[in-house]
Amino acid sequence: MTLNEGAALASTLAALREALGDDAVRVGEEIGERSMTDWTRHEPMRPAALLLPRTTEQVARALMICNDARQSVVPQGGMTGLAGGSIPRATDIALSLDRLAGVEEIDSAAATITVRAGTTLQTAQEAAAQAGFELALDLGARGSCQVGGNLATNAGGNRVIQSGTARDQVLGLEVVLANGAVLSSLNKMVKNNTGYDLKHWFIGSEGTLGVITRAVLKLQPQRASRHTALIALSDYEQAVNLLRRLSTRFGNDIGAFEIMWPDFFDFGVKLTGARSPFNEAHPLYALIEHASFDADDDGSRFANVLNDALDEAAIRDAVIAQSVADTRALWAIRECTAEFPVKLDPINFDVSLPIGEIGAFVDRCRAAIDQTWPGNESYFFGHIGDSNLHVTVDGRSVPGVDHHDVYALVYEMLAPLRGSVSAEHGIGSLKREFLPVSRSPEELAVMKAIKHALDPNGILNPGKLF
Amino acid sequence: MTLNEGAALASTLAALREALGDDAVRVGEEIGERSMTDWTRHEPMRPAALLLPRTTEQVARALMICNDARQSVVPQGGMTGLAGGSIPRATDIALSLDRLAGVEEIDSAAATITVRAGTTLQTAQEAAAQAGFELALDLGARGSCQVGGNLATNAGGNRVIQSGTARDQVLGLEVVLANGAVLSSLNKMVKNNTGYDLKHWFIGSEGTLGVITRAVLKLQPQRASRHTALIALSDYEQAVNLLRRLSTRFGNDIGAFEIMWPDFFDFGVKLTGARSPFNEAHPLYALIEHASFDADDDGSRFANVLNDALDEAAIRDAVIAQSVADTRALWAIRECTAEFPVKLDPINFDVSLPIGEIGAFVDRCRAAIDQTWPGNESYFFGHIGDSNLHVTVDGRSVPGVDHHDVYALVYEMLAPLRGSVSAEHGIGSLKREFLPVSRSPEELAVMKAIKHALDPNGILNPGKLF
Repeated sequence: MTLNEGAALASTLAALREALGDDAVRVGEEIGERSMTDWTRHEPMRPAALLLPRTTEQVARALMICNDARQSVVPQGGMTGLAGGSIPRATDIALSLDRLAGVEEIDSAAATITVRAGTTLQTAQEAAAQAGFELALDLGARGSCQVGGNLATNAGGNRVIQSGTARDQVLGLEVVLANGAVLSSLNKMVKNNTGYDLKHWFIGSEGTLGVITRAVLKLQPQRASRHTALIALSDYEQAVNLLRRLSTRFGNDIGAFEIMWPDFFDFGVKLTGARSPFNEAHPLYALIEHASFDADDDGSRFANVLNDALDEAAIRDAVIAQSVADTRALWAIRECTAEFPVKLDPINFDVSLPIGEIGAFVDRCRAAIDQTWPGNESYFFGHIGDSNLHVTVDGRSVPGVDHHDVYALVYEMLAPLRGSVSAEHGIGSLKREFLPVSRSPEELAVMKAIKHALDPNGILNPGKLF
Repeated sequence: MTLNEGAALASTLAALREALGDDAVRVGEEIGERSMTDWTRHEPMRPAALLLPRTTEQVARALMICNDARQSVVPQGGMTGLAGGSIPRATDIALSLDRLAGVEEIDSAAATITVRAGTTLQTAQEAAAQAGFELALDLGARGSCQVGGNLATNAGGNRVIQSGTARDQVLGLEVVLANGAVLSSLNKMVKNNTGYDLKHWFIGSEGTLGVITRAVLKLQPQRASRHTALIALSDYEQAVNLLRRLSTRFGNDIGAFEIMWPDFFDFGVKLTGARSPFNEAHPLYALIEHASFDADDDGSRFANVLNDALDEAAIRDAVIAQSVADTRALWAIRECTAEFPVKLDPINFDVSLPIGEIGAFVDRCRAAIDQTWPGNESYFFGHIGDSNLHVTVDGRSVPGVDHHDVYALVYEMLAPLRGSVSAEHGIGSLKREFLPVSRSPEELAVMKAIKHALDPNGILNPGKLF
């Protein structure tokens, strides 16, 4: 850093202290580990300062000061991201939403919850449940992730097949632009065609267009009964047909449709220390949840549809959970992914493809990986109803191989299909290089034009996305 | 028109004929009435020319030529709009999507339909039905309106409570920008977090940011059984409580929740020439549809929930349709709106408010109208589950009153509530003046910044929205 830059930073920090108060501006050792990297643990870096504003107005003043000083700002939520979108550089100022937290209102007539960006997802979920509703957004990081970050990354999670992604839960949004202007669009209305729907510009923009400070989210009624089944299938085509069969009969009462290839299933069974619920091995497995609003639903309709499928040889076998313990045992196989970071050195993919193309892609992808790295251990499973496939290659099984080479191999196979290199985790800093796999030059050019229009000095989260 | 302008237009038209072919460029008397105004019949105007491109590439070439010539362009679909968004000025060139029509693909595995912008909604609906699916978007103009226009205006319609607005049906979009760049984002995937979700910038932008040429829409399974009931209620609070009760029990199997105030209900009954299904008058009426995916659903669960509500005095009375004829008779009351243009001189409002605030707003609004124009005849009904209220004042009952004064009175009452002056019809040219009722100066400023970034010469639909 040159003397001038140091002087500029000092003057910016002085202005920030003046505007936000001394306790809201931290530097050096006052900045804890948590602000340095996300759940990828990628290249932790202490930012030049950490801001802890308490109000939207303080966020606005902070951004105005930074914009005037051409000082880059990294918005930070719960730091649970998986794409490096909130990892600072040494020259960035981190802007934490931690103190802008809390549920402001639940409107039972409108079925909405208004929350500040720094509220953890779990806090919002619990407030919704207490009011007799359900917040449809749910993901493993619920206890740490923040609603602002969920929206900035358009988080996916466990209920996308039923209720869509984070974006689909949003009715209103308050955003502070790079220049400090506050867009307070805290709309509670389902229909509102008055000009451009600004909230959609910021959802999923990973902090590059504005800082989300508050949101109005839709609430759903609580589902009253849940039934779980594990299905054995002959091939991927059967999986798609079963998805359509269940969807035709139950609409979005199908709350999970998780497809596990044998490598994944066998690993999951081994990790749980249990036996497979089936007596023989099968080419493909589906874990399915039926979740109904009807408290009197005893699961017989769900079971009947599966029995019909069995009679018609549309599936090979089915196990329906008869108890909470059964349900947990079936989910434990699928949730072996929680053990991946401990048991493996995971090279993870979070890709999307049109639903009908996933099966053939898995076959081609596995063949290419096997050909390139014989002896590799790889695991395939997907939220098929969401078009989402997860692939994990165990880095320990390909010793000496640069992880980047594995990424390049898989993403290159996606390119001709215009698949998505990020279904739900975002681009952040870690997937920037691969964004052109999924986006055309024309799309990238217009994204950059929009970025320039909303943040002409480029202070918001530079080095992310593009 | 000065000689220079005339020469410029002639040169632009020559370039357009060269690029699109003579038959795709019409001027003067070759341009029919249909291209001059929309379903409002507001100020018909013959545009300087009418373009009829057949392909996305032709749309791109046409826009490139017009952009270079700084020639304004009005995109036109089925001309069924209700806000003047597609009405040309004499100096504009109209760009019709009529010839860019047809269903390109139905992907049964992905449950998507890919259509060209000029496809009528009904054509798309029928193609979906033939493939065993349902396109959730539906509105009265289905036979004439076009999918491109539906998306450009984010149309609402009959199934919003169940499936959302036009926006919520879109997975992918192809758009031509003002400069002729083609953004071909024909995504079929549910999850795709690879940079800004560009489709949302164009949906609902009323042709001011780009011309939609193709779209990938989600398909739903077909609902297999429908049950209809007319409910008598004590007050608006009962209506909201009933909505929540039904939603808790049936989720989005509630396909209609239409609230009619007595003025509207009595008018509807009178127009149908039938008797009210109830023996006495009631303070409020709800027409409700339960639509289930279960073909074996005999409506008893729906009836039981209504019976329980009656037992608890949560509603005053209920009539459940027992036949198709019953159902049609109940809907005929609500659909008396189709007769409004014939029987009334309608001054129409399409506003939104948070669901809990609609009842009090109706009371205040009616009182203000009555105080200002004693003897007026006004009708109130609303798609309450969508936050949407329609008010119609019969112009014949307020002779000599400038319609603009009626608009101003109602919209001014919306302003403190930050209600929406357009729930589903858009702003177009007719509501421009009232846009600031619903949008803050900061919001308008950022909308204009985006408009400038994507259409720096302002050629796309000038005079609309802003």
